[in-house]
Amino acid sequence: MKRYFITDIINKVDQEVELYGWVNSIRDHKKVVFIDLRDRSGLVQLVGDESLSKLSVEDVVYIKGKVKKRPQHLVNPNLETGEIEVEVVSFEKLSSADVLPFNISDLGYDLDEQIRLKYRYLDLRRDRMKRNLFYRQRVLSEVRKFLASRQFWEVDTPILTKSTPEGARDFIVPSRLKKGKFYALPQSPQQYKQLLMVAGVERYFQIARCFRDEDPRADRAYGEFTQIDIEMSFVTQEDIRRLVEQMIIEIIEKVFPEKKILQVPFPIIDYQTAIKKYNTDRPDIRESKDENVLAFCWVVDFPAFEWSDEEKRWTAVHHPFTSPKKEDLKYLEQGEYDKVRADQYDLALNGFEVAGGSIRITDPNLQSKIFQIMGHSEADVKKKFGHLLKAFSYGVPPHGGIAIGFDRLLQVILNERSVREVIAFPATSGGVTAVMSAPDKVSDEQLKELGIAVIEE
Amino acid sequence: MKRYFITDIINKVDQEVELYGWVNSIRDHKKVVFIDLRDRSGLVQLVGDESLSKLSVEDVVYIKGKVKKRPQHLVNPNLETGEIEVEVVSFEKLSSADVLPFNISDLGYDLDEQIRLKYRYLDLRRDRMKRNLFYRQRVLSEVRKFLASRQFWEVDTPILTKSTPEGARDFIVPSRLKKGKFYALPQSPQQYKQLLMVAGVERYFQIARCFRDEDPRADRAYGEFTQIDIEMSFVTQEDIRRLVEQMIIEIIEKVFPEKKILQVPFPIIDYQTAIKKYNTDRPDIRESKDENVLAFCWVVDFPAFEWSDEEKRWTAVHHPFTSPKKEDLKYLEQGEYDKVRADQYDLALNGFEVAGGSIRITDPNLQSKIFQIMGHSEADVKKKFGHLLKAFSYGVPPHGGIAIGFDRLLQVILNERSVREVIAFPATSGGVTAVMSAPDKVSDEQLKELGIAVIEE
Repeated sequence: MKRYFITDIINKVDQEVELYGWVNSIRDHKKVVFIDLRDRSGLVQLVGDESLSKLSVEDVVYIKGKVKKRPQHLVNPNLETGEIEVEVVSFEKLSSADVLPFNISDLGYDLDEQIRLKYRYLDLRRDRMKRNLFYRQRVLSEVRKFLASRQFWEVDTPILTKSTPEGARDFIVPSRLKKGKFYALPQSPQQYKQLLMVAGVERYFQIARCFRDEDPRADRAYGEFTQIDIEMSFVTQEDIRRLVEQMIIEIIEKVFPEKKILQVPFPIIDYQTAIKKYNTDRPDIRESKDENVLAFCWVVDFPAFEWSDEEKRWTAVHHPFTSPKKEDLKYLEQGEYDKVRADQYDLALNGFEVAGGSIRITDPNLQSKIFQIMGHSEADVKKKFGHLLKAFSYGVPPHGGIAIGFDRLLQVILNERSVREVIAFPATSGGVTAVMSAPDKVSDEQLKELGIAVIEE
Repeated sequence: MKRYFITDIINKVDQEVELYGWVNSIRDHKKVVFIDLRDRSGLVQLVGDESLSKLSVEDVVYIKGKVKKRPQHLVNPNLETGEIEVEVVSFEKLSSADVLPFNISDLGYDLDEQIRLKYRYLDLRRDRMKRNLFYRQRVLSEVRKFLASRQFWEVDTPILTKSTPEGARDFIVPSRLKKGKFYALPQSPQQYKQLLMVAGVERYFQIARCFRDEDPRADRAYGEFTQIDIEMSFVTQEDIRRLVEQMIIEIIEKVFPEKKILQVPFPIIDYQTAIKKYNTDRPDIRESKDENVLAFCWVVDFPAFEWSDEEKRWTAVHHPFTSPKKEDLKYLEQGEYDKVRADQYDLALNGFEVAGGSIRITDPNLQSKIFQIMGHSEADVKKKFGHLLKAFSYGVPPHGGIAIGFDRLLQVILNERSVREVIAFPATSGGVTAVMSAPDKVSDEQLKELGIAVIEE
């Protein structure tokens, strides 16, 4: 196993070390050759004789060398290892590199993104992208620590599952064992997490992969995204807001100490005020756009329903499992659906929606009524949601939850331009995958085995 | 938020507490009613007057009560809370329960599994299943801690991706944006993790969902499974084996202190010996079947290739990215493919294969040659693996890794009968999902939008 990361050798002056890494740059002074060696942790200067000059930029090398303190006037204050250098004793080239298709020492924003994604494994070598990968796993690691300390269980739920209408198009997967039938990829684990509450898990979370076949939009990655999915029993809206707020504050203090949260506790704005004052339900409450300021705010008291002129029916603003506010149940009785507010809470950050949640309906009669209001026939409800209504008849705890759009949250914290900058291998907004180009044709035999055919247009 | 879990109140004698939970059982002595209240943490006895008798088993209740020490002769040594009981001051029924379709107080093995999966949210209420869910998240949490302490980064890779041949059938997903084309769900993140090594991540892991459309087998869950996926740069086979061994030993000591690992360090058996002595490449080295003994062993020196009579070509025993052992490269030159051993290592536990890994090929020429031996044409290699060979031309570190079959590992540790017992919502071996029955028909409009049709037989 690799003996040291480069930044581990700073305090090993006058010791012999073994290092592995990439040639980041070469300065060839004939008799003396300087190389900046790079690994995941950083850079260090190597000094050696002319034999080093046969190496090229991005070659992979193994070196044995001696750590030396640099004379004071040669200290490089811009480098974490700037007080030392390594005198090469011996080295071995492990892999040769061709000239890269683009520069990786800059930020990379000016490059054609298609090219960056085709060579994502090189694009990820740049400092900025490595930093983004680092923060991604670091934040998720802290999320897990925080929720475990609050006695949450992480439970994983199926990816091959049933279509349930949650507002976007499903991806579907043809079944070979049951020809002519299809699985759907989950738009969210919504029903599973509610079933886990019925099961008595009480505090659930999952870093969940979700799938929506949405139309291309410049700042999206197509197809899949990651949400921090949380559900709890025996809670109020305030409990969930407080939990998420504490989690976010703790993580930002730990992982991004240079960032300032504009207002703590996060301000709570009701939907009507947000629309009136900010003309949006995800307000940016900053007065100036300092990039190190994170301005969170909760938006509450959303309408439960909105009339869809297109579909000629009432639709759920959040989703059909969202509980109306208790004090508005009377409007439901009276058929004044536009007056009913939902027990819902969204979290906005610098003008982006980064989370949304609600207290759920647990009364099967109320849940049936909501489905009816939304134009589902009784038979339809039974077919699509019968399992959930049935589950609610066996002792269901009051429960609620929230889903944090993790890619978006991280993008905004890191001041990145799109979620694709914080995902290792994102698809383009048009749905082409990174590096390995998919979607692609499949063989006729494969289609035949699945009992489907492609329709020529 | 729920004030206390039941097991939190043991040391709150003479204090007033609020509890939420399910009625586990009722003993109605007319003037005095005893209830065992259950939450995720355990059970506690409630004592109250006849008003409690209107509750039914599995109702969800909120109670206020006073914690009392039980007289010595009434202590229940079988209950964690057996030294106390709670005198009910007031209570509220939050949800009524119908009679459950099956008993949840036993182990549940005798029930029809279809019924258990249909009502999985009730099946998970039984102690055994709750324990399995608990251990599942507990072990994964320790895996993450261990690997983070070794400076591994957790990186997530795409689920909508490209088909690559790894021995099993792919699930495919029709593309709406590119009609007639398909994504594939990953059989493993193999190529992505190798690309992350090219990117310089050096130490990667992922708790990865993998998808294989394999034929039904009794002890499998159909379709998807979870692997602990690890990849490292600048390592030898020994490094990876040692890391995984340390991880497993640490986790078993922490999470399953009652278990005994038969032999440490894990014995290393070469493939030929395993076949000769045990007649299998995943030997059970126990002499007696004590259920608390975990007998791990490594199997090494697998043949790299096997001849497929069916396909009339050489196939990879592990996968085509596996490096031959250096000392056997000469056989490759000489065309004696059956003599070439792979730099591969599998881990067996009590007769089950629980992990498999290898040092990878990083020489593009060698990789091309291996593909040719396996009967891929040059054009075919370029189309399917061109991106990987290209990536290897830009400075690839020597690397290797391993994939631990997490469901199987947990099943064996917990002495369970099938992997389905350690998954929250498994599909049946025949591919029907739990609770929400999929696969299912989809609408003609949906098919039309995707440019596909179902072929009637």
